[in-house]
Amino acid sequence: MTLLGPLFRWDTVEDLLTDRARVQAMLDFEAALARAEADARVIPASAAGPIAAQCSVERFDIAALARAGALAGNLAIPLVAQLTALVASNDAEAARYVHWGATSQDAIDTGLMLQLRPALARIEAELARLAGALCSLADAHRTTPVAGRTWMQQAVPTSFGLKVAGWLAAVDRHRVRLSEVRGRALLLQFGGAAGNLAALGGRGPKVATALARALKLPLPVVPWHTHRDRVAEVATTLGLLTGTLGKIARDVALHMQTELGELRVPAREGRGGSSTMPHKRNPVAAAVVLAAAARVPGLVATMLGAMVQEEERGLGGWHAEWEVLPELVGLAAGALHHLTETVAGLEVDAARMAENLEATRGLVFAEAAQMALAAKVGLPEARRLVEEACRRAREGGRHLRDVLTADAEVGRHLAEGELGRLFDARQQLGAAERMIDGVLAAHAAATAKTGVQGG
Amino acid sequence: MTLLGPLFRWDTVEDLLTDRARVQAMLDFEAALARAEADARVIPASAAGPIAAQCSVERFDIAALARAGALAGNLAIPLVAQLTALVASNDAEAARYVHWGATSQDAIDTGLMLQLRPALARIEAELARLAGALCSLADAHRTTPVAGRTWMQQAVPTSFGLKVAGWLAAVDRHRVRLSEVRGRALLLQFGGAAGNLAALGGRGPKVATALARALKLPLPVVPWHTHRDRVAEVATTLGLLTGTLGKIARDVALHMQTELGELRVPAREGRGGSSTMPHKRNPVAAAVVLAAAARVPGLVATMLGAMVQEEERGLGGWHAEWEVLPELVGLAAGALHHLTETVAGLEVDAARMAENLEATRGLVFAEAAQMALAAKVGLPEARRLVEEACRRAREGGRHLRDVLTADAEVGRHLAEGELGRLFDARQQLGAAERMIDGVLAAHAAATAKTGVQGG
Amino acid sequence: MTLLGPLFRWDTVEDLLTDRARVQAMLDFEAALARAEADARVIPASAAGPIAAQCSVERFDIAALARAGALAGNLAIPLVAQLTALVASNDAEAARYVHWGATSQDAIDTGLMLQLRPALARIEAELARLAGALCSLADAHRTTPVAGRTWMQQAVPTSFGLKVAGWLAAVDRHRVRLSEVRGRALLLQFGGAAGNLAALGGRGPKVATALARALKLPLPVVPWHTHRDRVAEVATTLGLLTGTLGKIARDVALHMQTELGELRVPAREGRGGSSTMPHKRNPVAAAVVLAAAARVPGLVATMLGAMVQEEERGLGGWHAEWEVLPELVGLAAGALHHLTETVAGLEVDAARMAENLEATRGLVFAEAAQMALAAKVGLPEARRLVEEACRRAREGGRHLRDVLTADAEVGRHLAEGELGRLFDARQQLGAAERMIDGVLAAHAAATAKTGVQGG
Amino acid sequence: MTLLGPLFRWDTVEDLLTDRARVQAMLDFEAALARAEADARVIPASAAGPIAAQCSVERFDIAALARAGALAGNLAIPLVAQLTALVASNDAEAARYVHWGATSQDAIDTGLMLQLRPALARIEAELARLAGALCSLADAHRTTPVAGRTWMQQAVPTSFGLKVAGWLAAVDRHRVRLSEVRGRALLLQFGGAAGNLAALGGRGPKVATALARALKLPLPVVPWHTHRDRVAEVATTLGLLTGTLGKIARDVALHMQTELGELRVPAREGRGGSSTMPHKRNPVAAAVVLAAAARVPGLVATMLGAMVQEEERGLGGWHAEWEVLPELVGLAAGALHHLTETVAGLEVDAARMAENLEATRGLVFAEAAQMALAAKVGLPEARRLVEEACRRAREGGRHLRDVLTADAEVGRHLAEGELGRLFDARQQLGAAERMIDGVLAAHAAATAKTGVQGG
Repeated sequence: MTLLGPLFRWDTVEDLLTDRARVQAMLDFEAALARAEADARVIPASAAGPIAAQCSVERFDIAALARAGALAGNLAIPLVAQLTALVASNDAEAARYVHWGATSQDAIDTGLMLQLRPALARIEAELARLAGALCSLADAHRTTPVAGRTWMQQAVPTSFGLKVAGWLAAVDRHRVRLSEVRGRALLLQFGGAAGNLAALGGRGPKVATALARALKLPLPVVPWHTHRDRVAEVATTLGLLTGTLGKIARDVALHMQTELGELRVPAREGRGGSSTMPHKRNPVAAAVVLAAAARVPGLVATMLGAMVQEEERGLGGWHAEWEVLPELVGLAAGALHHLTETVAGLEVDAARMAENLEATRGLVFAEAAQMALAAKVGLPEARRLVEEACRRAREGGRHLRDVLTADAEVGRHLAEGELGRLFDARQQLGAAERMIDGVLAAHAAATAKTGVQGG
Repeated sequence: MTLLGPLFRWDTVEDLLTDRARVQAMLDFEAALARAEADARVIPASAAGPIAAQCSVERFDIAALARAGALAGNLAIPLVAQLTALVASNDAEAARYVHWGATSQDAIDTGLMLQLRPALARIEAELARLAGALCSLADAHRTTPVAGRTWMQQAVPTSFGLKVAGWLAAVDRHRVRLSEVRGRALLLQFGGAAGNLAALGGRGPKVATALARALKLPLPVVPWHTHRDRVAEVATTLGLLTGTLGKIARDVALHMQTELGELRVPAREGRGGSSTMPHKRNPVAAAVVLAAAARVPGLVATMLGAMVQEEERGLGGWHAEWEVLPELVGLAAGALHHLTETVAGLEVDAARMAENLEATRGLVFAEAAQMALAAKVGLPEARRLVEEACRRAREGGRHLRDVLTADAEVGRHLAEGELGRLFDARQQLGAAERMIDGVLAAHAAATAKTGVQGG
Repeated sequence: MTLLGPLFRWDTVEDLLTDRARVQAMLDFEAALARAEADARVIPASAAGPIAAQCSVERFDIAALARAGALAGNLAIPLVAQLTALVASNDAEAARYVHWGATSQDAIDTGLMLQLRPALARIEAELARLAGALCSLADAHRTTPVAGRTWMQQAVPTSFGLKVAGWLAAVDRHRVRLSEVRGRALLLQFGGAAGNLAALGGRGPKVATALARALKLPLPVVPWHTHRDRVAEVATTLGLLTGTLGKIARDVALHMQTELGELRVPAREGRGGSSTMPHKRNPVAAAVVLAAAARVPGLVATMLGAMVQEEERGLGGWHAEWEVLPELVGLAAGALHHLTETVAGLEVDAARMAENLEATRGLVFAEAAQMALAAKVGLPEARRLVEEACRRAREGGRHLRDVLTADAEVGRHLAEGELGRLFDARQQLGAAERMIDGVLAAHAAATAKTGVQGG
Repeated sequence: MTLLGPLFRWDTVEDLLTDRARVQAMLDFEAALARAEADARVIPASAAGPIAAQCSVERFDIAALARAGALAGNLAIPLVAQLTALVASNDAEAARYVHWGATSQDAIDTGLMLQLRPALARIEAELARLAGALCSLADAHRTTPVAGRTWMQQAVPTSFGLKVAGWLAAVDRHRVRLSEVRGRALLLQFGGAAGNLAALGGRGPKVATALARALKLPLPVVPWHTHRDRVAEVATTLGLLTGTLGKIARDVALHMQTELGELRVPAREGRGGSSTMPHKRNPVAAAVVLAAAARVPGLVATMLGAMVQEEERGLGGWHAEWEVLPELVGLAAGALHHLTETVAGLEVDAARMAENLEATRGLVFAEAAQMALAAKVGLPEARRLVEEACRRAREGGRHLRDVLTADAEVGRHLAEGELGRLFDARQQLGAAERMIDGVLAAHAAATAKTGVQGG
């Protein structure tokens, strides 16, 4: 990995996105092609083995590939040349049939698919793990009051479990999306020079079918050299996921602020310190996830913009994908992994949450008071009364409950006990528990639907 | 519409995205809310009718809403105030129950859903119409030879029908995506101030259920005020669609170039002229579609970046969506409509296509010759022979066929008749027809799956 | 303005970006062209007056322009047609010379320049006003202690004036940038059909010079129909500005959080309320600015991507600019205006700032203690001692000062009085005042350099 | 370099952007800091040497830095730790003074500046080389006629030299921009924990001044930890440049199309071949440049969006820059280098250009005919006559010249010799030569202004 790799990425997925993995995936295509063509009697049966035997990245000179690829404009050309030479040095006859009837893009695109398949699988598993951690957290804090905040201001009380349930529901939706895109976007690319397999004469479809079976990749009805919607959909799906990860990370960072102190990440040697401030515990994972959420949208836009590819094979658009999609996959996976680690160890300070609900001297309960009054005097009048009370509370530095208790008009409508209940956050959680139940049920359904359980 | 609206947009969809439509959709929410709350006995049965009676945009002062919305920070606040005043002037008692227990975002987000529903339906229908037009074109030109072009250079012959089939297959995939996202993304928003419906006490879920039924919008398990993945997925899905539209438009523009002349759009009074050049026929629709393809990715990126919304309701991110999503919908719809009109009238010049296949003096058949030779001498040797022949053809200004015919070594492997067949484009279409059949079958399946037929 | 216009935009600039303003600017080009060509004796002297007399938007049918523009692919074509007809109805001879030798893009691009010129001037003036307000604020709070926060955690004390000085310095840099881009990007477009003014024979340069003089726009050495770097630079410059506005707005929103309460925006009838919560005072301007900061980068990306325009005049890229650049200008201006209004009325709660500095029980002074000790025992040992003290303070719920005072080893190096001074925020402001002085001096220089004073 | 590095990047710049270069640049900061603090008597004079002696990347364990940086959240923390340990192993006393009073971001940001300085210098030199090559080409083809193309259709004749002059003028504008941004954006970062240098007591400014001098970086009036406008301006400036490179590459690719054949890139062993088509000569450099032009706008958007950084040091936004800016610099440099190589060897086929001007049978001269007639009968009547003639020419498959010659009404106004001249492209180049002269003069001025000559 690179210097910043361990910070921004997740080695479990990054290992699938290395230069070596890229070359091996293209070689897997070449090996399977030779076998499929031998099966379809397009090339001699004896040629497949010697070709496949050389399709191992260890035998290749990566630096030479890189240099020659720069001249050729893609990696498949020098790779086929190196492969042909390797095969020839062992079996001159077999070397005649390397890359038969295929085009560079067949090898490159199918290779990409072979890299994406396990990468998406690992992301799905980690996402299931994140969902599992959120599940426990939501359940444990069903009735833990916390200030609901809107426009970055305290609004009304809510339950911390409900907030987590909101995170969980979104994560579960992404699990379903990923499971669908996995079934839709990963498939064979095989069309030859201009997509009609003309170089294989009439036997193109037969080879294509055998090749798809060998690589366990579905066969599309038509090659997709310049139709990149499925590749771009992998990008948009991960873009949507990263948006949600960013939202959760932003929430965590806000709750962790010094003055709120409602959440903490576990202290760990070397984690989140400062080069000059001995007391700092920085929310590193939040920084990583927010950085990914800042970077991924631009990469998605590039993938979408690059869809405008010319004719049978494009100029520039396709090339733009080569580094962008792996980068996007790596950033999304890294953000997911960092957030999962953080959520799994998140410490919730229910006492600080309760304390912060007192920060406004009761104003956070203003809506509750208003609705109770509204049941008696209608909403406009109730609003007028409570707004006025809020103003007096603010100006006088008094608790809203006290102002309302002292207000004769309010007293006519609300008994003192009733008022007290309004200022008890646990009594103001509305349908939170029922909603949490709904989310937990949906979670079980998502797990069943995707067939992916957390690690 | 604005000055540039008719150029870039489609009035059929744009009518759903006007300021008036936005206000009416919010009012539809308020009316349905009053009825649902009356049904749930949260407000008096007698209040619903008088509230609903005022929920018509004609009664509202749009300019005043705009001004007050600028102060309030959103449109729902002044809209509720105007609505309350309107109701009060007819029925003071009913006015007590306007917007009961809801928050601004409930009205704004649900209103958005009510706008998106018909907009997406119209886009789906137009997409079906585009697919229908492509279907006919693909079928009609199954065996019309055209130069396949890669890297913006002639590559090998292919069939124009296959190219169109590639367009069609992509369009059909978008039909399926849109049909799915319609079922997934359009749903009720109803959570109250912080998403737990606390203002409705225990009756929140009952009201929510009735409200969802009344508006025919599915009820989510939990409100989604700051979880924007579904709204963003509408954006990404239209982003993917626009990418494909751009790809088709780029192809059309390339084929229409003066020197190629393979496609023409129908001449029409006032269409595609120049302010100074009397002979010009500009590809206006291609310009419109390519402009959309240039603009939509940035808007998708904004929607993804804006997903990072704070706590229970965000600051800035949500606001960023308000103009961006309708703009994105409008641009995608406009591009789709312009392209559909163009494709429906596209004139194909098969003679120019055939003529252009002669532009390289046979070089475009080089792969065919190579593969025929490769069957005899293996691929590396065949490539060497044909490369050498191409070089001689270029330098001598001769036809590749003639160079190969004159080549003794080639003659040993290929009879002259065989050579002739290699230079006949119709003999070099490979699996094109079979692929076209596959695409047409998939088209029928997409139509069945989405249940949407073209107009 | 549209429904959301008053919220997101600034009418002073928006008035320059309306459909009518766009048409008038193109007409200003046509009028000046006629006059310049009469001066250069390219058209009869008698033709200029009658042409110019009709160049008033009031005489034009905007809806008809919009409809015809959709067919033609741009607005100049129907505009020239309408203008010719208007002139003809008064002076058939003069009508022969409308739009002589120019191309559509000459009128459209020069029109854009005529709209941008006053728009940028108003933005510069408002930016000067913002700088002025920041100047006062920085000066007034030179020594007001506030917690410096890094990674969204309290770090060390700093002065609020220094924070504002940081905002101001950035704003002043943008003033210089805008002043430069104004001088560089605003210039005449005049090249005729393909940029060589061939339609004017040998008199092209003479007409161009006269036209530039008439419109007070510099004359470029060569037309720039498909070289959009200057137009795109307007976009990037405003993109940079909006980034800074977003940074300031984010800071304001963070300081305004309920639990921090360090800044307040002035209460105002109808401003920042909630449709359901009577106590809310939402930071509306921050939402508006942050929304702009979320939207503008995508628009800048579109402008940059659209620079890839084909040959003499492009297909799609140019069209993409037409709505995007005005939108970008409008959003930047709106954000600027909202932020300026907010900053001008910002209420600073120095007491809450001081109080929040106590939130960590002295941990925010840890670096100060460390550096004082480091002077005696070196940095590594000092860091070890203070880290250990921080841990004890946290675990024991004690003040860091007390822990350090009680520490024998610390006592050996620091006298108690010395320790006390370390925990006095006013003693820990470092070079803040000197830096503020530097910023104020740079502010004066920027004002002198740009020649723009605040309103 | 990575597998795709040689294709997309330029080793001369990439060498400055490696992981090792990043670490060395941070170490250069630490060494200069120690020296400046020794000079300012903040640390003992004897400490500077031993610290500086260890500031060499060879002594550092990059993999360990990467791992520890992932925990810490940035690289400076483990780098300072490793450095301290290295110094301590040689001089325990000196180790007490490593990184004295600085914060991580001081080292990271200043390090970035030290990497950008030579990177931008090399880009400027290469840009000068590109300008030089364009200069020769523009001069050589002053009067080479070529079809001017608008909306991807032949419009009117122009000179190829004028097209190249348009490219050159844009490139020269970027040279001036880069020269300015170099002077504006590259400067010292030094502020300590929260930007006020409090850890240095009163001696902060003195150290800052000495440090700036030592590193030859200007000293800003105030630290800029969360004010990223200058860093973002490097990104926008390179974004503007890449847009122009993309425009030129698109033009080159269009001219190189098989059916146009107006430009060729030099054949070279291994360059631009195909893995299956022996005749292909793909425009590799154009693909590389267009890929960069597709990718850079998204990266610029990320840099702009990331400007919204919180308080004294941000969370996520700053981190987003770390990989994005080097990637952007690398892509811009790669695109520039590839394009420069291509332009330096570009082969112009003036004969094909002339031939293509005949493709429309004279329609490309329609505007010339119209203007000649307009001088006699006014523009509207001339347009009517020529439009009608174009229609007849198209329908009858005749040359426009012949249709006009046969037209009695035209004959009344234009003598046959006059008509002939109108259809001679060399007579229709307008002010092209004069414009080219202007561009060449501006080129000399840009070279003088920037002080950078091509290699």
